Amino acid sequence: MSGSNKEHIIKSYDDELTRLTGEIVRMGELAVTQLESAIDVVERRDERAAQRVVANDDAIDQLEQEISHDVVRLLALRAPIAGDLRNVFAALRIAADIERIGDYAANVAKRSIPLSMVAPIAPTNGLGYLAELAAGEVREVLVAYRDRDAERAYQVWKDDALLDEAYTGYFRQLLTYMMEDPRNITPCTHLLFMAKNIERIGDHATNIAENIWFQVHGEPLATQRSKRDFTSNPEMTRLGDRSE
Amino acid sequence: MSGSNKEHIIKSYDDELTRLTGEIVRMGELAVTQLESAIDVVERRDERAAQRVVANDDAIDQLEQEISHDVVRLLALRAPIAGDLRNVFAALRIAADIERIGDYAANVAKRSIPLSMVAPIAPTNGLGYLAELAAGEVREVLVAYRDRDAERAYQVWKDDALLDEAYTGYFRQLLTYMMEDPRNITPCTHLLFMAKNIERIGDHATNIAENIWFQVHGEPLATQRSKRDFTSNPEMTRLGDRSE
Repeated sequence: MSGSNKEHIIKSYDDELTRLTGEIVRMGELAVTQLESAIDVVERRDERAAQRVVANDDAIDQLEQEISHDVVRLLALRAPIAGDLRNVFAALRIAADIERIGDYAANVAKRSIPLSMVAPIAPTNGLGYLAELAAGEVREVLVAYRDRDAERAYQVWKDDALLDEAYTGYFRQLLTYMMEDPRNITPCTHLLFMAKNIERIGDHATNIAENIWFQVHGEPLATQRSKRDFTSNPEMTRLGDRSE
Repeated sequence: MSGSNKEHIIKSYDDELTRLTGEIVRMGELAVTQLESAIDVVERRDERAAQRVVANDDAIDQLEQEISHDVVRLLALRAPIAGDLRNVFAALRIAADIERIGDYAANVAKRSIPLSMVAPIAPTNGLGYLAELAAGEVREVLVAYRDRDAERAYQVWKDDALLDEAYTGYFRQLLTYMMEDPRNITPCTHLLFMAKNIERIGDHATNIAENIWFQVHGEPLATQRSKRDFTSNPEMTRLGDRSE
């Protein structure tokens, strides 16, 4: 073990876990900020700002690395069992979900660059609304994680249906723009992927909620959220699915 | 610890790790089979077969659960350190990548259902080629993992550039179909997402390759694969990126 780790040996397992939780919450807040900056960048069509958001993603990846190292150290020093081990694994999984939320946010920013190079007619406000819902979910689930509040996590898990619904609506809207004028196809294709990225961020918030539930109750959040049939058109329903 | 686990206590750490590796390789082979079935289903436009592929994904998720439990048991019983712990963590990460490969394969199958309901003019053969490349990558990286063959893993990591290139080409082709005739937009949108899913499968194969490299050499596969500029058109380049 390296010298830098020795200082932690005296810490109790609970201290370590509290510290780990704090690191993860901070990592999550950084990811939400990234999402909000990404949307801001889309609306302002600011390429340099977009590149900053993309670059910031490294900081989140770095944090996940550090968290993994802390977990390894925690396991090596404390060899926790049962409930403790469950908490440590939940921490690992939640950090991985946050890392991917950061990736999706960075990708939204990255796609804003080519978007700003093509016809500016594409409707981007729908994207902002999706991002608002997704950012709200992530902030809520981080609070639920910090407080080990399973009920609050469950609420986020349920609320993700609203984001799925909004995503499907925006998707349908984009298709109509594409059908209306072929010049809309390329920009709207970027927006389709950006919207999908944001919808996936909501899915990761629900993953985190499931991990919190399991951590608190020791059993999976069994009840499957019923997939709603948002539309009468089967392929639209599938386009809106969350299974990617 | 449950009775079913007691039998493993006598096993050595190496036995446990070998068993774990075997489980993960089997899980990976199942995921590749899922991808191949998904493409077969797309070409045959067979809704019932598609639903079978979607249902089979549960088996992969189940395997990942079992692997996580084995890892927890391994950590609790053996409290491995340093290199051993590195192997155990690599196993966890690789299982998670395979689980996502399975999700993407199932999603390709799922999207084939609405695809078969709309204009059948959409070009699906390009999708089959992408899937061939992706399946080849996953099979290779599984062999590399089983044999702890870092060089073989590195080859897969490099070869993923070919999949990215094929993806970008197919993407461009689909855009032209969409611009040509608005009736192509909905089916081609499905194909865009299906192609993206397959391109992501390649990214997970490279993640696995990086984990193998780290496991063998104890340091990250540092050299970043240079992102190729496949086209002269900036947004096309970005559309083909792998950062989602």
